[in-house]
Amino acid sequence: MPVKKVVEEKLKTLGIEVGDVIIISNKDEKWEGTLLPHHAFSSEEILTIKLQSGYNAGVAIDKNTEVTLVKKHQETTKKAREIPFDQKKPTISVIGTGGTIACYIDYRTGAVHPATSAEDLAFSVPEIFDVCNVKARVAFQMLSENIEASHWKTLAHEVAKDLNTDQVHGVVIPHGTDTMGYTAAALSFMLKDLSGPVVLVGAQRSSDRPSSDAAQNLFAAATVAAKTDIGEVLVVMHGESSDTFSVIHRGTKVRKFHTSQRNAFKTVNDVSLGTIEDGTVTIEGAYQKMKKGKVTVDDAMDEDVAMLYSYPGLKPEAIPDRKGIVLIGTGLGHVPIKLLPRIQELIKNDTVVVMTSQCLFGRVNMNIYSVGRDLLKAGVISGEDMLPETAYVKLMWALAHGKNPDEVKNIMMTNIAGEIVKRTRSDTGL
Amino acid sequence: MPVKKVVEEKLKTLGIEVGDVIIISNKDEKWEGTLLPHHAFSSEEILTIKLQSGYNAGVAIDKNTEVTLVKKHQETTKKAREIPFDQKKPTISVIGTGGTIACYIDYRTGAVHPATSAEDLAFSVPEIFDVCNVKARVAFQMLSENIEASHWKTLAHEVAKDLNTDQVHGVVIPHGTDTMGYTAAALSFMLKDLSGPVVLVGAQRSSDRPSSDAAQNLFAAATVAAKTDIGEVLVVMHGESSDTFSVIHRGTKVRKFHTSQRNAFKTVNDVSLGTIEDGTVTIEGAYQKMKKGKVTVDDAMDEDVAMLYSYPGLKPEAIPDRKGIVLIGTGLGHVPIKLLPRIQELIKNDTVVVMTSQCLFGRVNMNIYSVGRDLLKAGVISGEDMLPETAYVKLMWALAHGKNPDEVKNIMMTNIAGEIVKRTRSDTGL
Repeated sequence: MPVKKVVEEKLKTLGIEVGDVIIISNKDEKWEGTLLPHHAFSSEEILTIKLQSGYNAGVAIDKNTEVTLVKKHQETTKKAREIPFDQKKPTISVIGTGGTIACYIDYRTGAVHPATSAEDLAFSVPEIFDVCNVKARVAFQMLSENIEASHWKTLAHEVAKDLNTDQVHGVVIPHGTDTMGYTAAALSFMLKDLSGPVVLVGAQRSSDRPSSDAAQNLFAAATVAAKTDIGEVLVVMHGESSDTFSVIHRGTKVRKFHTSQRNAFKTVNDVSLGTIEDGTVTIEGAYQKMKKGKVTVDDAMDEDVAMLYSYPGLKPEAIPDRKGIVLIGTGLGHVPIKLLPRIQELIKNDTVVVMTSQCLFGRVNMNIYSVGRDLLKAGVISGEDMLPETAYVKLMWALAHGKNPDEVKNIMMTNIAGEIVKRTRSDTGL
Repeated sequence: MPVKKVVEEKLKTLGIEVGDVIIISNKDEKWEGTLLPHHAFSSEEILTIKLQSGYNAGVAIDKNTEVTLVKKHQETTKKAREIPFDQKKPTISVIGTGGTIACYIDYRTGAVHPATSAEDLAFSVPEIFDVCNVKARVAFQMLSENIEASHWKTLAHEVAKDLNTDQVHGVVIPHGTDTMGYTAAALSFMLKDLSGPVVLVGAQRSSDRPSSDAAQNLFAAATVAAKTDIGEVLVVMHGESSDTFSVIHRGTKVRKFHTSQRNAFKTVNDVSLGTIEDGTVTIEGAYQKMKKGKVTVDDAMDEDVAMLYSYPGLKPEAIPDRKGIVLIGTGLGHVPIKLLPRIQELIKNDTVVVMTSQCLFGRVNMNIYSVGRDLLKAGVISGEDMLPETAYVKLMWALAHGKNPDEVKNIMMTNIAGEIVKRTRSDTGL
């Protein structure tokens, strides 16, 4: 029997639950603390406890490990979790999707909230209730690298449903950070006439770590959802590596730039919409105001799209037969000239090919160098200043909305949700 | 007959050459200036002239355009181009490869140097001769998106040949910016026991534009090649958008981050080696000192490697059968779980699979989340803090140097040329 099973059964036999104070003893060592829930990020051979110092410790367990119950967790925690409601405050909806931010523990009391519901999530940052009322539920529980177009559709409908009730002012979507930019872009294209802010939020470090950004991010996201009149899909994340302010990013212009740092998300080729510091929202960029009417969902997507990163030695046959191809070219929008015949062949067969740049910052311009001009002549269209990720999501959406390649191309070249900025502001730096 | 041909023949008939003062008249307009060479970045229907104001103008031509010769270019320019030699100064070698930086005109005199030779290039920044003697030649003339492994090999041998003569202190390689990072990484792995600095340099804007960075970059690169004792492959480019300083980057840690801005190159996951301002080099990072002995070339490469960008909806069959695969995963090093069986199959067939991150900044860590642990179990190796581009080049090199997959993996996980930094310095920011 694997170690994990042995431990699980031992805990069960002893009636030990998450939140109980326990002692774990191995041959030479002894640890006392509150049992924390098992997370997606924990190894299977580890029990995690919160020590009296407030720090968490992962204790390796084997068949000889002894676990003893010291004290059951107090039910008072549960009682405190009745949802407050204040008619004078705006109401937000929290729709959980999983990710690091959903691996949740109250960061001050140490009480455990295994966020099996988005409600738990909201509760772990009680300051949220000073700002707004919270309606919370879970749409799905996924690590974000597994989220696909079908999930984007589900989410779009959930968001519209909530915004189309009278009570809900804005929506917060806790989401894994890996592909949060893709989901934000997808919702930006799918949701029409937003009647309130739709805010994606994540955590780079789960809340059982002293350095977690989960609480600040969630509070900031809730504040934006409750207090602003932005009618766009947004991403709210840490602004810098210390705990000062959070940044509001437009959903089509944001990208994750660091594997672990808390200020990993950056707006590319535009200014960010603003900041939140100590509960105060400061707007810096122009935005779409929320509409008064009904939110509609336009979620048709053609998933027959591939994205391809160009590099020295890339082979023509690496470009698959698809209805849409997003190339992540070099520099101003180039690929090895050897690929040209294959690209010409695809376009002749009605594939729509869009060029973006692996530089990420700056605009594609295929008029400057000969390869670019050859690609333009072949019918490749410029992704302008779009992120490759956004161009990929948009191409799926455009293929389902254009009747023929020319219509699809027109959609791709038209700004729909802030993804193309015709003139980049000079204060938009690298 | 296409316009270009018409114009070319007209110029030929009139005996007009690049450097001559001409008048171009269209129906309503008249332009006088010095004829500049036709560049890869000019449209075919444009003649470019340098006006008396010092600015360049591109004049659209058609069949009715009149061109008149005003004055032949002065041969004094040519006489001034005898190479000076000063025994007291160090000598550098300039090995041209093409790119924007090779589209060259003297930025102050307006005299034309169509850089068909690297010598011309050096001459267009005469300040270089205050610092060093220059030996110059052209290895090849290419737009960098077409450069492949065979060119890296050629370059490595050219560099070694030059450094192994007594006279040459360092080497400067003008190179297109699109794939300069790949070439810099390749040379870093191929060149052993460097007896002097090897400096790649490029231009984001060609020298016929007032905003060109060609002159500053070339002067800075020559200074680093002539004056420092660095025994590494480097990239020297603009440090900020104004013309103040240039930055010295390690060849394995640098990447182009902007399609057009002059400060497009950034060191990732390390501090840059230093800066050059007004001819003064300031070293800030640790570096490998140049060796006294002979430079050797270890250029074996196995090009059977593909690089793959992960995204929602990526299909397992998109991963080709190759000896090596570099995945550009999301976040800490993840791909959709649907790809796992295909990755397992490849590894069983002795493919070496390396994980990097599309975040670019930060370190891959597959121990944190379940997908990462599944990939580790399958035998995927961590690219640590390596750039995807560097990991790709290194994997080609490693496959040609390891006898079996385990040896290749060991090479990939061992720092060879500064590409893996075990502990990222805290002042290495995003």
